[in-house]
Amino acid sequence: MPFPFGQDAYARAGVDIDSTNRAVERMKALARATSRPEVLSDVGPFSALFRVPGGMADPVLVSSADGVGTKVLIARLLGVYDTVGQDLVNHCINDILTAGAEPLFFLDYLANNGLTEDQKVAIVDGVSRACRAAGCALIGGETADMPDVYRPGDFDLAGFIVGVVDREKVMDGRRIVAGDVLLALPSTGLHTNGYSLVRQIWEIGKEGSDGGRERLEQHEPDLGTTLGEALLAVHRPYLHDLRPVLDRLKGFAHITGGGLIDNTPRILPDGAAARFDRSRWHVPALFRLIQRAGEVPDRDMFRTFNMGIGAVLAVAAEDADSVLAALPDGFICGEIVPAVGSDDRVLL
Amino acid sequence: MPFPFGQDAYARAGVDIDSTNRAVERMKALARATSRPEVLSDVGPFSALFRVPGGMADPVLVSSADGVGTKVLIARLLGVYDTVGQDLVNHCINDILTAGAEPLFFLDYLANNGLTEDQKVAIVDGVSRACRAAGCALIGGETADMPDVYRPGDFDLAGFIVGVVDREKVMDGRRIVAGDVLLALPSTGLHTNGYSLVRQIWEIGKEGSDGGRERLEQHEPDLGTTLGEALLAVHRPYLHDLRPVLDRLKGFAHITGGGLIDNTPRILPDGAAARFDRSRWHVPALFRLIQRAGEVPDRDMFRTFNMGIGAVLAVAAEDADSVLAALPDGFICGEIVPAVGSDDRVLL
Repeated sequence: MPFPFGQDAYARAGVDIDSTNRAVERMKALARATSRPEVLSDVGPFSALFRVPGGMADPVLVSSADGVGTKVLIARLLGVYDTVGQDLVNHCINDILTAGAEPLFFLDYLANNGLTEDQKVAIVDGVSRACRAAGCALIGGETADMPDVYRPGDFDLAGFIVGVVDREKVMDGRRIVAGDVLLALPSTGLHTNGYSLVRQIWEIGKEGSDGGRERLEQHEPDLGTTLGEALLAVHRPYLHDLRPVLDRLKGFAHITGGGLIDNTPRILPDGAAARFDRSRWHVPALFRLIQRAGEVPDRDMFRTFNMGIGAVLAVAAEDADSVLAALPDGFICGEIVPAVGSDDRVLL
Repeated sequence: MPFPFGQDAYARAGVDIDSTNRAVERMKALARATSRPEVLSDVGPFSALFRVPGGMADPVLVSSADGVGTKVLIARLLGVYDTVGQDLVNHCINDILTAGAEPLFFLDYLANNGLTEDQKVAIVDGVSRACRAAGCALIGGETADMPDVYRPGDFDLAGFIVGVVDREKVMDGRRIVAGDVLLALPSTGLHTNGYSLVRQIWEIGKEGSDGGRERLEQHEPDLGTTLGEALLAVHRPYLHDLRPVLDRLKGFAHITGGGLIDNTPRILPDGAAARFDRSRWHVPALFRLIQRAGEVPDRDMFRTFNMGIGAVLAVAAEDADSVLAALPDGFICGEIVPAVGSDDRVLL
């Protein structure tokens, strides 16, 4: 189908180049606000340059790629665009912190169909804000206008982080033994996992429709907020909490998809199992609400959601008190015991 | 809406965990096939660890994030899943090569709704293959099953690369002066840009439909292939071509979205302009076909498509012969001239 091609040709193809270019300029300013001395900002039009920090005997780069799952649909339904970028960065920060790494730099990938310039900038503003809070440089990214892959107004967001740790300080859980104590740090909500299930339970955001918005905007007395506000609570970064105690941690399991049941074993050496003591914490109201509404069995809840615990830390028994003293909202949630079989690495 | 929650609960929510887990295991094998000595493979369940290579006085990390645009829709329509991963990696390799960097490692983000296990693995197989060819380690990634963000069968693919270059060898175009010669290396096709426009012209893959498949499968005598095959030709990586001549290059513009007109100025210092000599190369048949079908003005073609040139290299006049001798399909495509105004950085 021939058609007149002119300045608005890409707009006809669903791509508004001018608006995209303006958004990119504003994003660059948000990126500059996160800069660090290692960033070589005057070079690299096609790529981002970052000097390897000195002072380490054997620097190891620690990286992670992530998305925020279908939390993007909740954000879109509620018209809240400045939080998912924070979720993304904080998720990535925690993932590399499990190896003991400090964040260095971050790149984002924002794909969309027809987001406004302001919406795009709000998303990257969230990325930039979380990067600044962590001392991480936002040094690059890609904004892709993709008609037909996404429905009008839809978007997806992915991110990529690189951090660094000296090799002798890599945290890998291999010194964890029976008798070690498990500490927990609370989550702020679902973080970035379980949203497809939650949306299924309440029929939220199905098939790109606006279905479920009313439910999201309903005030929930048990939560003290609307359901939507609780679901959009920003993924908590544990960097500032854990930095002062890293040298006393034997392992850090970031509780994401799969919950305590699937994530805790990822840091355990052979022969070790985690026994959680459920009397040690109250499962927050949001999870109880989900469980009631979906009639979800207990074990499935613990395999899908973080159930109020975003970070599980393994420490030697003699370090537990000093580490806890440095973590105002930390608490003991269990202990390491000898593993009996290979299947039961987590006792709940 | 309460519903019974069991082993297939996530499947009800549009997420098949077993299939996802099997795909992830196969992807891990594809990743292992790309390993390098710097990869610390026995640690890091939540992140990927890579030792900074030694031997450089001041190592600079060069990174880039990218997608492949709506080329994913062409791939999906034709049921060809093993090429877009190569496109993605090769695009990223070229982007960091513009700074003179060797690739170190890569992470991918694959978001989808209902791709089969084999389709997911085929996509990552393409990523792995291109990584192996470049000596780049695929060390991590995220596979996200995202019902309702993507239509059934749809997917998006993004990637992140990190490479390294010694600071004194960073290529940045600042030594480019009038009198330098511009060399070109051919592209293999559209590489990863212009697909939304091409799809608009032939009404291919609009609104997630199968529309346009017949057109894609039609043999094109001018191309010697079907239109679809020509459109899916893999983005050419220039690493092996350029590695032997990097020390003689003053700049490398990777010709992506924006074509020669927008990309060449990105490497030019103030005061320099690029004058292309269009008698030096034949615009390949695919671009002429697009231009005819869409009645696209010449200048717009050159601002949207690479028009047969995927890499523009700036070299000193006295180096042109020796560099050309090392590039079997390289050719002179223009020269650097003094810039007259700030608007006309590219003369075509």
